[in-house]
Amino acid sequence: MARARGGRAARRAARAGSDGDATASVIRQSEWGQLHYVDRAVEPLDAEGVERIHDIAMRILEEIGIDFLHEDARRFLADAGCSIVDGGPTVRMDREFIMEMVARAPESFTITPRNPAREITIGSGRAAFGAVASAPNVSDLENGRRTGNRADFRTLLKLTQSFNAVHFNFGYPVEPVDIHASIRHLDALYDILTLTDKVAHAYSLGVERIEDAMEMVRIAGGLSWEEFEAQPRMFTNINSSSPLKHDWPMLDGAMRLAQHGQPVIVAPFTLAGAMAPITLAGAIAQQTAEALAAIALLQWIRPGVPVGYGAFTSNVDMHTGAPAFGTPEYVRAMQMSGQMARRYRLPWRASNANAANYPDAQATWETCNSLYGATSGQANFICHAAGWMEGGLTASLEKFVIDCELLQQWTHYHRPVSTEPEDLAFDAIREVGPHGHFLGAEHTQARYKTAFYSPFLSDWRNYEAWEEAGAEKTHERAHRIWKELVANYSAPAMDEGVREELEAFVQRRKDEGGAPTDF
Amino acid sequence: MARARGGRAARRAARAGSDGDATASVIRQSEWGQLHYVDRAVEPLDAEGVERIHDIAMRILEEIGIDFLHEDARRFLADAGCSIVDGGPTVRMDREFIMEMVARAPESFTITPRNPAREITIGSGRAAFGAVASAPNVSDLENGRRTGNRADFRTLLKLTQSFNAVHFNFGYPVEPVDIHASIRHLDALYDILTLTDKVAHAYSLGVERIEDAMEMVRIAGGLSWEEFEAQPRMFTNINSSSPLKHDWPMLDGAMRLAQHGQPVIVAPFTLAGAMAPITLAGAIAQQTAEALAAIALLQWIRPGVPVGYGAFTSNVDMHTGAPAFGTPEYVRAMQMSGQMARRYRLPWRASNANAANYPDAQATWETCNSLYGATSGQANFICHAAGWMEGGLTASLEKFVIDCELLQQWTHYHRPVSTEPEDLAFDAIREVGPHGHFLGAEHTQARYKTAFYSPFLSDWRNYEAWEEAGAEKTHERAHRIWKELVANYSAPAMDEGVREELEAFVQRRKDEGGAPTDF
Repeated sequence: MARARGGRAARRAARAGSDGDATASVIRQSEWGQLHYVDRAVEPLDAEGVERIHDIAMRILEEIGIDFLHEDARRFLADAGCSIVDGGPTVRMDREFIMEMVARAPESFTITPRNPAREITIGSGRAAFGAVASAPNVSDLENGRRTGNRADFRTLLKLTQSFNAVHFNFGYPVEPVDIHASIRHLDALYDILTLTDKVAHAYSLGVERIEDAMEMVRIAGGLSWEEFEAQPRMFTNINSSSPLKHDWPMLDGAMRLAQHGQPVIVAPFTLAGAMAPITLAGAIAQQTAEALAAIALLQWIRPGVPVGYGAFTSNVDMHTGAPAFGTPEYVRAMQMSGQMARRYRLPWRASNANAANYPDAQATWETCNSLYGATSGQANFICHAAGWMEGGLTASLEKFVIDCELLQQWTHYHRPVSTEPEDLAFDAIREVGPHGHFLGAEHTQARYKTAFYSPFLSDWRNYEAWEEAGAEKTHERAHRIWKELVANYSAPAMDEGVREELEAFVQRRKDEGGAPTDF
Repeated sequence: MARARGGRAARRAARAGSDGDATASVIRQSEWGQLHYVDRAVEPLDAEGVERIHDIAMRILEEIGIDFLHEDARRFLADAGCSIVDGGPTVRMDREFIMEMVARAPESFTITPRNPAREITIGSGRAAFGAVASAPNVSDLENGRRTGNRADFRTLLKLTQSFNAVHFNFGYPVEPVDIHASIRHLDALYDILTLTDKVAHAYSLGVERIEDAMEMVRIAGGLSWEEFEAQPRMFTNINSSSPLKHDWPMLDGAMRLAQHGQPVIVAPFTLAGAMAPITLAGAIAQQTAEALAAIALLQWIRPGVPVGYGAFTSNVDMHTGAPAFGTPEYVRAMQMSGQMARRYRLPWRASNANAANYPDAQATWETCNSLYGATSGQANFICHAAGWMEGGLTASLEKFVIDCELLQQWTHYHRPVSTEPEDLAFDAIREVGPHGHFLGAEHTQARYKTAFYSPFLSDWRNYEAWEEAGAEKTHERAHRIWKELVANYSAPAMDEGVREELEAFVQRRKDEGGAPTDF
């Protein structure tokens, strides 16, 4: 757990902590707080390597170009002096323009949800963790794997709210396909904004959805439009259609949010060997070109709008073509992405990804590798941090719990080690001497409650005691914990007038037919 | 897999690889080779912090002293000018003496087993991985947990030999308690030296055992005594009895091996809050004092003898007193240990430890954390790297396989990333353009066989295919793999005359009664 820094942060943490009391009867978790990096980032590239990748990214933008499948985007870029190739979708932009636009973006920004105690900072040497998003399936040990639905969707939101280690909602943790697609975003956002008080995300899936999302976030926060636009209140994440293409719905949503001053993460999905070159240097160059192209567009439209450099480069299994995550290559790709993001002074997004089918050893090592890649590269915005499995095809309820344990551990790990005289313990060592034991020493007794990180999911009993108690495996303990958390969940407070306004909006938009489903 | 560097290493790797062919019918593993570090070490302490810990370690040695429970050791140290406190076991030594002795130790050394292709380098920016050692129990999925025995002992040796990721034998992977203690070392060493051709270790458990071990390693290598002593052929590891004490059997074995030029690792077992201060800085200071005390003794006896700074500082669960491994504190303790070892220009030893009872998620995250701590701190000698569980109380056959997969991944991760023009792939990106796919590109086809690390244990099929094939979990796949490896095992070649000499030695020493069992 990161120590609260400063009076304002401390008061916020205290308020946020008290909201999470319902979990205290189930687990003893770390307090609300972001990870603060203390180590140097791991940097596999030397300065020349970074410049080589930068140069190729610039040459991609200058000589090959990026397809912008949105006429407004092309019009903006033409106005900015970029060249539209043969009147078609391809836009070429020179490096001076790109770098001038990128320089407009802030190095760090905050996003403030309806509960200001849940504000997160994106950048400034910190990481924020988001829940799993967009899984078509959901699974748990008892009921197996099933298609996403609103009941499980709500269960995952309750876990998002319960765990202090999860700082923001990403998309829908699982797709609630039992809600008709035309009105799904209305019910889903309503659930997100009432069952959690953490930062919300809007999918860039067409005009109506993104406009409705902004309106609902505004209402939930009890904000006027002026207040909503005055600072980041929500965000969207767009993916390029790699290679070298930005599609209409993503561009449209991104431009709408940017026009209202809301943050946009641009995350190319560049699997090396499939949608990007098989070499990491080439894949990162392409990722960089695709990300900066959209960032330049957004900075032209709204100078200074918060954006994030998104990194999702991984590799495929070259025997089968299956995507792989949490591989050695994935770790390196994340570290390289961090170097590129820092070169452009942009906050950056990574993911806690794995390609396993069961919350077992493989799922865990891929997760540990992904978290290592993201944090050793000092990512600021770590999506899918809890619950993601099968390369994103399933949200696992047990994995959600396991991941939160790991997020807490990584956060705790990033605390400075003290070598103050009392920590060097010379007097305690002399006092205990060669025949004693430190458990009883005053130096130990004064510190034992807080000296070490205390996990909620580890079982450190000896084998006999563990077996006697039922030989519960880690995923079985995780199963028990999520059920208890959901049973003990209590919704965060919301002003009754605000809730009614939100409900009325949802009803009105449903009456109007919601959004087109031809996306 | 580290690339073979230079012609001699390449030829060795080729020879060693061909020995491992029996495994090829079961798994496709990485070739024989050590991990070569390429990143900067992660260093939680600043230069002043390192000096503060050093200063406390020196003050422990100067002002408190270390108990040496061996009269020869005290006599050597008295000869060296150290002060024997009140004629008792406590020896105080000043920092000038300590640092002069430590400076005699080599920064790097090799150990050459009977198959010279299996030579390992300890130091020089490399890591070597050893098998689990000294577990009293053994477990597998089919037969559960049981007391150690020779059959399982031999099974674990066959796995040690089969996996290229395992570079050396540590102690007995599991204690073969069905062999009488007086002759156990004879049968156990015979098995180690015939079932594997990798570096062997001798327990420092009394005069006869250590002398017999040297003799057997000498015979197995077909060496004269002069040849045996000319370079490191084996090693021992001693633990202090923390706090501040070195026991007779450990000191006796260490001194005997040192006198014959064989390496000694000195690894204090300093659990913070139990045998060492609860603060990491204090625990590492005590670890350093205990390690350097024995290292100074050995360097006085035999200037330049290879030694290793051993680190085993972890924390205990302060609610129950149970030892914990693979915790955030453990990671920091390993990184700090690496800083201290580099300050003294000593190669250093870490462990791949965990405290889990089952090869599940907890076992895996604790293992990943331990490996991260050891490798981010750039440990040179990583013991218990495959198969250790329950804080060392069980050798798990499935965990052995899982760990070898992780050792391969970490080794592969430590390869430099290239940004040569062909890796930047500009032409491939232009060729594929916005409408293509890289799978068919020539740039991909020329590289797909070797571009990415290829795991032997991961299952990256989609859920439906995985379920259709039996929904085998990772530990179940590991179970199948170790059984197949044992079934396909073939013993490494040994000259018939050498084998007969080894057998005759074992028989003669058994006839003489073996070793006393009053240790």
